[in-house]
Amino acid sequence: MNKEITSVQNAYIKELFQLKEKSRERKKSGLFLIEGAREIGLAIKGNYHLETLLYVPELCSEAQLNNLTTQHPTIIEISKEVYQKLAHRDTTEGVIAVAKIKSHDLNNIKFKSEFPLILVAEAPEKPGNIGAILRTADAANVDAVIIANPKTDLYNPNIIRSSVGCLFTNQIATGSTSDIISFLKGHGIAIYCAALQASEVYTTQDFTKASAIVMGTEASGLSDAWLQQSTQNIIIPMQGEIDSMNVSVAAGILIFEARRQRNFK
Amino acid sequence: MNKEITSVQNAYIKELFQLKEKSRERKKSGLFLIEGAREIGLAIKGNYHLETLLYVPELCSEAQLNNLTTQHPTIIEISKEVYQKLAHRDTTEGVIAVAKIKSHDLNNIKFKSEFPLILVAEAPEKPGNIGAILRTADAANVDAVIIANPKTDLYNPNIIRSSVGCLFTNQIATGSTSDIISFLKGHGIAIYCAALQASEVYTTQDFTKASAIVMGTEASGLSDAWLQQSTQNIIIPMQGEIDSMNVSVAAGILIFEARRQRNFK
Repeated sequence: MNKEITSVQNAYIKELFQLKEKSRERKKSGLFLIEGAREIGLAIKGNYHLETLLYVPELCSEAQLNNLTTQHPTIIEISKEVYQKLAHRDTTEGVIAVAKIKSHDLNNIKFKSEFPLILVAEAPEKPGNIGAILRTADAANVDAVIIANPKTDLYNPNIIRSSVGCLFTNQIATGSTSDIISFLKGHGIAIYCAALQASEVYTTQDFTKASAIVMGTEASGLSDAWLQQSTQNIIIPMQGEIDSMNVSVAAGILIFEARRQRNFK
Repeated sequence: MNKEITSVQNAYIKELFQLKEKSRERKKSGLFLIEGAREIGLAIKGNYHLETLLYVPELCSEAQLNNLTTQHPTIIEISKEVYQKLAHRDTTEGVIAVAKIKSHDLNNIKFKSEFPLILVAEAPEKPGNIGAILRTADAANVDAVIIANPKTDLYNPNIIRSSVGCLFTNQIATGSTSDIISFLKGHGIAIYCAALQASEVYTTQDFTKASAIVMGTEASGLSDAWLQQSTQNIIIPMQGEIDSMNVSVAAGILIFEARRQRNFK
């Protein structure tokens, strides 16, 4: 018989609540929460290990639940009240997973193609932007997304949500800017820095070879370390009154230009 | 001598607070608030009429203020407390304008080019997405942005903020889907609907002629009225696990493909 928890005062539920709220607790335990059947399904597909599934019988059917139990996690029935305590939004399907954090070591990256296409973002902060970048990276099926000097915990519930689960469908690595530059150079991958200075229009460059497209922050662009090691700086010509675009929109334009040049293969 | 208001209980300040909070009050009075020197500057450039400028002497220098007074608005000194009541965010420069809402009639659109490039968004809801679309439209210097069946008041403070003032730099029209379709057809503008069905890959289409790129919502796509009148449905090939992109990212990819075909002219 399944375990059942109906009280928000339950010690285990209190622990899980901390996982939702605090990056520090996620790091300490190596665990995080995933909310929603679709997101949990994508995490399973992405080889995340689920420890526990918590579900509200009134909200989540047995059939829905069975799709998510292939790894034989511990299953716990919870009350609606407990669910609301742990859930980040209202519209999900009454199911939450406790999953293991993955290693995001650069050396774990497995290239999918002979001429990899990689998206690098330096020090992105806003969960919404990171989520949108991960959606775009999934859509473009890049070989990997690399976050340099991360400022925000990848397992922040707002990133999971705004990525609509693309946190799990992408190969993601994190590292220091210098380690990432060494990694890219070591693999013969050209570094295209999105930058205003000494830049060529992005459509004039050949992205069919192994390429990394590197995005800085909207506020301050890329650090000098990137600009000094850039194969070529690239720019999206700005033709209006404003001199900056949303970083996830700019990443989309650059990555899909690379995909266009590669005939969407 | 300038007027001075130091009390948040002042009747005029209460009226202005309503303008910030309520779309209905903006519509009734035909007025709205703009916060920040940069945004007010862009509104002046965009031929918005400023009625009043309110500024905090400690935060906004006379030189900064003088840049914003070319239309000779009424100038009112306010206290920091009053500013905080009216301001939407903290980081702006202690200056707020009361400006007149513009007409966004379709027939006011003046095409900038012989072969106009137009971005249409049907029923967008999230202010953040609308703002990002307006930034992209500014960057691509489209002829006009047209919002079909708007769900959100354009003068919502969150749209002004997330557009970083591009609400004022674009020509923007609103209208019903049927009026917009008639308008586009009447001007011989091809209608390219972003849609999953009966679609061609976007890069195979010729956007150098007069073109409107039409985006639906992430949740439900475009309405049948658009799909029935579409010159050609277009699609961004999705190569990952997920079947939808952020609408402002998708709009950026499509609009900049058109700009690429036009050699960024």
